[in-house]
Amino acid sequence: MALLRRFRNLKSEDNTGFGTSSSGRFFDRKFGSANVGKTGGNILTRYSWYHTFLGMQTHRFLLLLFLIYILINLVFAGIYYIIGIEHLAGVHSGSSFKNFTEVFFFSAQTFTTVGYGRISPVGFMASAVSTFEAFLGLLSFAIATGLFYGRFSRPRAFLHFSNNVLISPYKDGIALMLRMSPYKNNNLSEAETKLTLAMQVEDTLPDGKSTGKMINKFYNLDIEISKINALSLSWTIVHPINDKSPFYGFTETDIKNSRMEIFVFVKAFDEVFSNTVVARWSYISSEIIWGAKFRIMYHPNKDNTKMILDLKKINSFENVKLPEIEPALN
Amino acid sequence: MALLRRFRNLKSEDNTGFGTSSSGRFFDRKFGSANVGKTGGNILTRYSWYHTFLGMQTHRFLLLLFLIYILINLVFAGIYYIIGIEHLAGVHSGSSFKNFTEVFFFSAQTFTTVGYGRISPVGFMASAVSTFEAFLGLLSFAIATGLFYGRFSRPRAFLHFSNNVLISPYKDGIALMLRMSPYKNNNLSEAETKLTLAMQVEDTLPDGKSTGKMINKFYNLDIEISKINALSLSWTIVHPINDKSPFYGFTETDIKNSRMEIFVFVKAFDEVFSNTVVARWSYISSEIIWGAKFRIMYHPNKDNTKMILDLKKINSFENVKLPEIEPALN
Amino acid sequence: MALLRRFRNLKSEDNTGFGTSSSGRFFDRKFGSANVGKTGGNILTRYSWYHTFLGMQTHRFLLLLFLIYILINLVFAGIYYIIGIEHLAGVHSGSSFKNFTEVFFFSAQTFTTVGYGRISPVGFMASAVSTFEAFLGLLSFAIATGLFYGRFSRPRAFLHFSNNVLISPYKDGIALMLRMSPYKNNNLSEAETKLTLAMQVEDTLPDGKSTGKMINKFYNLDIEISKINALSLSWTIVHPINDKSPFYGFTETDIKNSRMEIFVFVKAFDEVFSNTVVARWSYISSEIIWGAKFRIMYHPNKDNTKMILDLKKINSFENVKLPEIEPALN
Amino acid sequence: MALLRRFRNLKSEDNTGFGTSSSGRFFDRKFGSANVGKTGGNILTRYSWYHTFLGMQTHRFLLLLFLIYILINLVFAGIYYIIGIEHLAGVHSGSSFKNFTEVFFFSAQTFTTVGYGRISPVGFMASAVSTFEAFLGLLSFAIATGLFYGRFSRPRAFLHFSNNVLISPYKDGIALMLRMSPYKNNNLSEAETKLTLAMQVEDTLPDGKSTGKMINKFYNLDIEISKINALSLSWTIVHPINDKSPFYGFTETDIKNSRMEIFVFVKAFDEVFSNTVVARWSYISSEIIWGAKFRIMYHPNKDNTKMILDLKKINSFENVKLPEIEPALN
Repeated sequence: MALLRRFRNLKSEDNTGFGTSSSGRFFDRKFGSANVGKTGGNILTRYSWYHTFLGMQTHRFLLLLFLIYILINLVFAGIYYIIGIEHLAGVHSGSSFKNFTEVFFFSAQTFTTVGYGRISPVGFMASAVSTFEAFLGLLSFAIATGLFYGRFSRPRAFLHFSNNVLISPYKDGIALMLRMSPYKNNNLSEAETKLTLAMQVEDTLPDGKSTGKMINKFYNLDIEISKINALSLSWTIVHPINDKSPFYGFTETDIKNSRMEIFVFVKAFDEVFSNTVVARWSYISSEIIWGAKFRIMYHPNKDNTKMILDLKKINSFENVKLPEIEPALN
Repeated sequence: MALLRRFRNLKSEDNTGFGTSSSGRFFDRKFGSANVGKTGGNILTRYSWYHTFLGMQTHRFLLLLFLIYILINLVFAGIYYIIGIEHLAGVHSGSSFKNFTEVFFFSAQTFTTVGYGRISPVGFMASAVSTFEAFLGLLSFAIATGLFYGRFSRPRAFLHFSNNVLISPYKDGIALMLRMSPYKNNNLSEAETKLTLAMQVEDTLPDGKSTGKMINKFYNLDIEISKINALSLSWTIVHPINDKSPFYGFTETDIKNSRMEIFVFVKAFDEVFSNTVVARWSYISSEIIWGAKFRIMYHPNKDNTKMILDLKKINSFENVKLPEIEPALN
Repeated sequence: MALLRRFRNLKSEDNTGFGTSSSGRFFDRKFGSANVGKTGGNILTRYSWYHTFLGMQTHRFLLLLFLIYILINLVFAGIYYIIGIEHLAGVHSGSSFKNFTEVFFFSAQTFTTVGYGRISPVGFMASAVSTFEAFLGLLSFAIATGLFYGRFSRPRAFLHFSNNVLISPYKDGIALMLRMSPYKNNNLSEAETKLTLAMQVEDTLPDGKSTGKMINKFYNLDIEISKINALSLSWTIVHPINDKSPFYGFTETDIKNSRMEIFVFVKAFDEVFSNTVVARWSYISSEIIWGAKFRIMYHPNKDNTKMILDLKKINSFENVKLPEIEPALN
Repeated sequence: MALLRRFRNLKSEDNTGFGTSSSGRFFDRKFGSANVGKTGGNILTRYSWYHTFLGMQTHRFLLLLFLIYILINLVFAGIYYIIGIEHLAGVHSGSSFKNFTEVFFFSAQTFTTVGYGRISPVGFMASAVSTFEAFLGLLSFAIATGLFYGRFSRPRAFLHFSNNVLISPYKDGIALMLRMSPYKNNNLSEAETKLTLAMQVEDTLPDGKSTGKMINKFYNLDIEISKINALSLSWTIVHPINDKSPFYGFTETDIKNSRMEIFVFVKAFDEVFSNTVVARWSYISSEIIWGAKFRIMYHPNKDNTKMILDLKKINSFENVKLPEIEPALN
């Protein structure tokens, strides 16, 4: 705890935009966004359906489109059925079920504008409904076109992060290291990384006395090389644990016992999209490994003409002994 | 009025792009843009129909599309009717009205490219018109596709602003506070806010004499934390009313009696659109509440693992007593 | 000419990207780009057809699409005619011309996927061709959809520039002024303007002797307020003609006799497109008016609640007498 | 080799993002990206199919779409064939092959939503499959629309680079020169270029001893004018070989014998796309020509009103004698 007291002398960041009193994880790795829920107001107001459709997994998105298609046809089939199948020329009538399937397929042929014409509307009501359905069908596919384009043109960084942060030997001391690697055939350039630490510390009054409450404070972590021209191989982010680092003097146990979260924020330029892309990730105490270093994850090919990046090795590390570090003065 | 005289010593901004002589509201909250009308020239020149379609409310947009669809079909129905229904094979002819509905539905079936084929064009004229109509139909839906995509891919900030600006206690003095909160499932990062004050003051000659006219001058308002890394919770903008503030020495009455407008301009990066989004808002004198402070609008969830942002509370505040402030020296 | 000699002491710009030996206009107002032609290589290499389609006027674009539609149908009609109309069931055969129109309309019905079915392909060849034509039709409309969207979503500044640059009284001296105004319902913010002067001067050797040749040199022109927060009214760009200005000491005749071009470059953020937009314009000697000032082009509305921008007045100015200026020392 | 030793005193760049041990070309001119392969993990994970479709040559892209179209129809034709052609009304049945072609064409008419109706589904199974096929058809063309738009709206620089880097006379010494030129009707402004040199040098220990291994080090090359306002003519990039240049003291033989690569990175603003575009290129030792200078590739047109850029001349140079340079002190 004495260790945490020195945090009072470190400049904390006030502009992270996170609250200070939560004790859960701030960042939700799965959704890549802040771990914040919303309540109050209309649910339709709280969700941008476009953002929702864009964030959905592909197979769910396709299934949802198909269900909407079936649902719309069921509704229109119902309407045609109520109008009466005698207003649809060419229907092979039979049992109620058979009749309903006939109008359902007629509806689908109208909605998709296939319009074979074996079944066709006769009379005002059926014709009017099919006129509207064909219009609706084309608009629906206009929306679907937009969604598809929105989904696959959405600029994404396609970066994998290592599962763990390692405390590795670095120059004469130690450093905190994590690694990222592009995993698709996109070209990222002018990449830039920021590391921020959220640490739960004692809340203190201006006179230095503890209030007995724990609050979260945020600290910027310096990075050796925080900008890189081209991000085509793996990139190891190095935060040297020197006397300017909040981790200075921490032992393995100190880290295990701290409630902390390290946020990674990467910004890069995607040369295919010609757009800025961002990626975020975070690590908590239990994801920090003391005394380990990453194995290089790329190697020249056989004839030594190009580099091969081995994506399987993103989490590959070996345990190493760290140099002795003097305990921090408390 | 003595109070307003000290404005002469404050540096005003010349680059706001607003005129100085209006006495209405500069900013139109509803449209989110400057309260400026345009006249002169052709109306088609003055409107970008794409901007107009993008800004329209969804139900109006859909209704407009439907009306255009009906209108186009009425026009083509008229043309087919003039050509003569005998050039449309399969028409169930009858009364003039019935004949017209038949050609109307044929037109719709052509425009949407359903083409059931119960009715089909025979002869040169009817065939030529339907050839053109089908072409027009596909182009129309191409345009509609573009409009739909333009509408829902349009980068927007989705930010709610508090209805009021509060004058709250802050440190040893007071501050002007307003609040914003994201209300949808979008991720905003690197947000930045600017506050500008438009104040109606006496116009003075270079020698310091008043011209007796009132003009608008613009002042930048300093913000304690004007940039924030992630805008996932609410963000309270704090302008401390110290001796650098234009409001220094103002009493509640001074504020009520001033003709002023406070502009908020927010710029952020939307991580889904990978684009910069902006939001604007403004407050006038009657929207400033003296002696109140915002209630926190987020709280941890039951098991303390995530923050819950309660959108209903954006305008929630409680009245508080402000510390005594020495009257400004006039 | 003595006047031009002082240009030797002004710092010229080397990075305009224009050549120095042309004597025509550098900037083409109509196309809004540099007045440069290209030769050599394949014409298909020299043109980006997408840029070409985007830059085309609307009525030409629509006409071109229609002509392509007719052309494709003529080609396919020819193919079906060669295959033989007996492979198209339902054709009302007659004269060669009538037969050709029948296959032409069948082609159109296939290309647009209307497919009424009165005429339908029978046999391998006709069916195969129509299978391909329908595929081609859908791809064509996919491309058309992209072009339409590309055209109307293309970020443009929608700015009008005054036809003339005025030499107006300004503070105790004179200034060069030009004016721009947004003319559509778009919202521009954070606008920034640069003025560059291209002046034909004597080419000199390092020892100061003239080579007798005239070359173009480029000079940056300082602007009083070169950035503006919101561009919702007209914006007058003011270049004070003081001793730092290349125009210092110029008389009306000096301006008339100079071969010069003033480039305007405006960059702004369009809040609807959420994108940077740019506009360019240029003025030559004969477009500079000596002794005139712009009339204000906006006024409050009747009830003084909003500003009205009168687009007709963009070129409205009145002649004024300029203050006496001491002739420059040569 | 003595020459290479002086590289120890030059500040090398650590943030290029390239590995240091490869001996092949770092940059792949054909793909315009780093010469890096990927291995490990799922192939579907390694490729962004959208980036792949966007990068494909046009004729391959179209052919691929057509093959997918044929393939899908073959699959559905197989399904209809299994269901039985008696469930398709209007089929002209005959041999197995003829029957299969009939269902194949029916499938195509459904997938493209032409739906002539000569052949139409009867009964539950055939109708259900065609209902699904029409849905799939429309989605496929929605995806195709997105791909087409993605392909032609993809911001590209359209820049040609000279095949060679020249060592030319420059002022009193020599300079390394390369040239780029826009070749399409796009407008590039605010262009900026960076040159980086990758040089294979001896790896040295901190005490200055060689390890006997060769590693790649990266050096920034200064450019005389690295930013340009408008890139409408050719742009010659000039790196003066003075005492700050890594090439200082190099002879023609030194260059031939070095293993090096010069990277060019250009960033510009495309005024049609209103977007930033980038271009990359690289040169290796054998592409450097000693003692040559570029011929100007533009000239005024006949009536001297505009500049003509002759794209054929991008690689046009003449051999020249370089001034004597004192050998570098080793």
